[in-house]
Amino acid sequence: MQNAAYLRLKARFARIAALGEAASMLHWDASAMMPPGGGESRGEQLAALAGLAHELLTAPVVEEDLEIAHPEGAWEEANFALMERAHARATALPTELVEAAARANSACEKLWREAKARADFAHVRPALAEVVRLQRETARALGAALSMDPYDALMDGYQRGVTAADVEPVFAAYEAFLKDALPRAEAIQAAKPAPLPLNGPFPVEIQRRLCRDLSARIGLDYDHARLDESLHPFCGGTPQDVRLTTFYDEHDVAKALLGVLHETGHALYERGLPAAYARQPVGEAAGMAAHESQSLIVEMQACRSDAFLAFLGRELHAAFGGEPASVEAANLARHWRRVERGFIRVDADEITYPAHVILRFRLERALIGGTLEVADLPSAWNEGMQAMLGITPPDDAKGCLQDIHWHDGAFGYFPSYTLGAMAAAQLMKAARAAEPGLDAALARGDMAPLLGWLRTNVHAKGSFLGFQDLLRAATGKPLDPQDFIDHLTARYLTA
Amino acid sequence: MQNAAYLRLKARFARIAALGEAASMLHWDASAMMPPGGGESRGEQLAALAGLAHELLTAPVVEEDLEIAHPEGAWEEANFALMERAHARATALPTELVEAAARANSACEKLWREAKARADFAHVRPALAEVVRLQRETARALGAALSMDPYDALMDGYQRGVTAADVEPVFAAYEAFLKDALPRAEAIQAAKPAPLPLNGPFPVEIQRRLCRDLSARIGLDYDHARLDESLHPFCGGTPQDVRLTTFYDEHDVAKALLGVLHETGHALYERGLPAAYARQPVGEAAGMAAHESQSLIVEMQACRSDAFLAFLGRELHAAFGGEPASVEAANLARHWRRVERGFIRVDADEITYPAHVILRFRLERALIGGTLEVADLPSAWNEGMQAMLGITPPDDAKGCLQDIHWHDGAFGYFPSYTLGAMAAAQLMKAARAAEPGLDAALARGDMAPLLGWLRTNVHAKGSFLGFQDLLRAATGKPLDPQDFIDHLTARYLTA
Repeated sequence: MQNAAYLRLKARFARIAALGEAASMLHWDASAMMPPGGGESRGEQLAALAGLAHELLTAPVVEEDLEIAHPEGAWEEANFALMERAHARATALPTELVEAAARANSACEKLWREAKARADFAHVRPALAEVVRLQRETARALGAALSMDPYDALMDGYQRGVTAADVEPVFAAYEAFLKDALPRAEAIQAAKPAPLPLNGPFPVEIQRRLCRDLSARIGLDYDHARLDESLHPFCGGTPQDVRLTTFYDEHDVAKALLGVLHETGHALYERGLPAAYARQPVGEAAGMAAHESQSLIVEMQACRSDAFLAFLGRELHAAFGGEPASVEAANLARHWRRVERGFIRVDADEITYPAHVILRFRLERALIGGTLEVADLPSAWNEGMQAMLGITPPDDAKGCLQDIHWHDGAFGYFPSYTLGAMAAAQLMKAARAAEPGLDAALARGDMAPLLGWLRTNVHAKGSFLGFQDLLRAATGKPLDPQDFIDHLTARYLTA
Repeated sequence: MQNAAYLRLKARFARIAALGEAASMLHWDASAMMPPGGGESRGEQLAALAGLAHELLTAPVVEEDLEIAHPEGAWEEANFALMERAHARATALPTELVEAAARANSACEKLWREAKARADFAHVRPALAEVVRLQRETARALGAALSMDPYDALMDGYQRGVTAADVEPVFAAYEAFLKDALPRAEAIQAAKPAPLPLNGPFPVEIQRRLCRDLSARIGLDYDHARLDESLHPFCGGTPQDVRLTTFYDEHDVAKALLGVLHETGHALYERGLPAAYARQPVGEAAGMAAHESQSLIVEMQACRSDAFLAFLGRELHAAFGGEPASVEAANLARHWRRVERGFIRVDADEITYPAHVILRFRLERALIGGTLEVADLPSAWNEGMQAMLGITPPDDAKGCLQDIHWHDGAFGYFPSYTLGAMAAAQLMKAARAAEPGLDAALARGDMAPLLGWLRTNVHAKGSFLGFQDLLRAATGKPLDPQDFIDHLTARYLTA
């Protein structure tokens, strides 16, 4: 039996979460459904929801109840700790700082769109400098409140339980691997025959059906999900009602197909969260890196495996016809596992993607730490790209202007992508060991063994464990880059 | 310059309205988009929004600010009066009564679905009696707080500024007209040739395009609107982002076509509300009867007129082909202006519809006033139908079980339908007098003259005037059934 103060807190956090769910639906609607003229009033709606949620979280009675609450049992205790953390983060920042940062982010984001279009960093530089100044202040205030290093305090907002000290050696090990692995992978690829073209066009109506069928086949229950379209694909909604989006390109079937499989990984995680703790902090996903591990284990580990590509090739042929040899697993692999040094993160392959992230991690840490100034960002970026991938961007649009993140005030987020990719490899190895029939099932388009293992070892844990503890419980060790390196070695470095 | 207390109230009411807009979007989504499994969490989201809106409206500071607020200018004064009214209504009812009524309504509604399916009134009778008991208590408490007759206080929640004393003579006049008019209309109709059948089927894809095109043509801007599908068509969303729904039947083109024109009338009203008072009480529509007047002036007055039917026939022929004579205005009129005594309100024609409403008005007034008990409802209903239309329902499913309203706790709503129909005729007459080219334009499918007049005389007024004052300002008199009677006489009683 929980005490009254703790039950009051649970009721309050359930209400805050319900507002968050409503906001999530309105965000989905804004991207997938809303007519263009609805933007201003949608902004008012979202501002009201965010403002009320913040007020509910920071009301004086919360602090009083946190003092006297006595949760009982391990899950309730973990839930309570997460309540304390949420309250500490929300109360750490003075309202003026939050508002100044929101204004600066919004102003900078707008200028960034123009600057990127013209490849003109100077156009956004003063606005970005202001964003960075306020993020430094935010990081200091959060760090002081949470007894953390300032940059760690920002990262903690995206991925609880991971510090820069955890990330550094992992990224250093990867960098060392990449130096040798990238030219070897390129040489092996060059020695293979050029891929046969995939026979398009791929009618959108057929793609739509195929994407839906495949996501259902690998485990998504459409009684609790929808698949729609938006310019920038994402997975939103709520655990009981997941909203996936994609973008169909008649000339490139991979974009929607692999995109939907990726979003399905996110969706399956949401669907598998512990329903008994719905709308409580401990019932939420364990953070951005954990979320990315679930999309990448489905997309990269499972769906781009030789076994699943063989199945996928048969599905593609049944849906679109064409030259049978072009949809054989080996040919699909040549298209969809192609290694190429490039300037753009979001277009990067599995091997070079972490290089883009490592670069950003180091730069943003230096920006927040005060050892790098915004004026020096373009040259630091270009030197980093040259050192990491041996290429130099021809302009800043292909360099430090390519991502929205910093220009919208998001610092500490980038590491999640690569932490997720590495965690996916580590989890896949553990799942294979526990489920010997996993790959044979993938060859039949059957993800049940993998999904069953993930449900038990990841999804059902909610936020009961932080990222490192989640990996420890599921795989016997904290994040270890070696499993990801082994995966890449097997996939790209064996001729 | 408004004083600080009033500005605080405006900010608070804007927030309450933003929560209402969010809820409206989530209701739309639940009907048009949501997967079946999303219902439970949607309920939590809507409950959180409603609960917070109620708390914002009833917080002690509101009463303090209402005491010292000094709005300046006629519109701000009207806005302030509506704030006072909303606060008075929200604080009039003890929380226990609100919760007991919500529980009773929800329980009764569930039993009603079963009772209607089996035509078994006894199955829902005890639950309905409890609903009525709590609505009597609600009406008394509201009446006391607002210094109103209890039934008027309920009606005031749907249509401000209209009392039973306004409604009674209007309905009595209509009843007197109907006695003679109905048999005459039937005789005239019987003397005409039977309608040629409309040549279906009507492919849904073409209906969808036609409905969208027609609603755009008569004035709906799809930069601020969407048209989707739901089982029970409605118009929801917000003034900046209106969401219309319809239901397509391949064998009956009228259902979606006239339905969308009806909902477009609602949508045009929302779109025309004064943007300067968005999310303020005075910027809202003037109530349910006013809203219904706008859907009916578009659907019944304009779109079923001879002039517009001629245009519509050409559009139908262009869209679906078929026998040209079947889509001539006269033949469409024989289908879509057919008079028929029936048991079901929602299927009723323009002449008999008010009879269904008058019956309900009298019965619900007696139920709330305590002069009729639930046990006697079926016989009172059947006697009323016999007296009014000369027919007796074969069972209660076609009688007092047909509508959801009472079984969901909605008393005082029914009159709005007929007040709206009458107001539509009254407004149309005034619009015709002011815009001599109105009918010639309708014959070309051009609603601009009518819409321009409505925008100025109805839409732009928001809730600045109550229903009766709105009519007075627009037509020179309060609600007068004669204009509706004249309209019906011209349309149905001239051979």
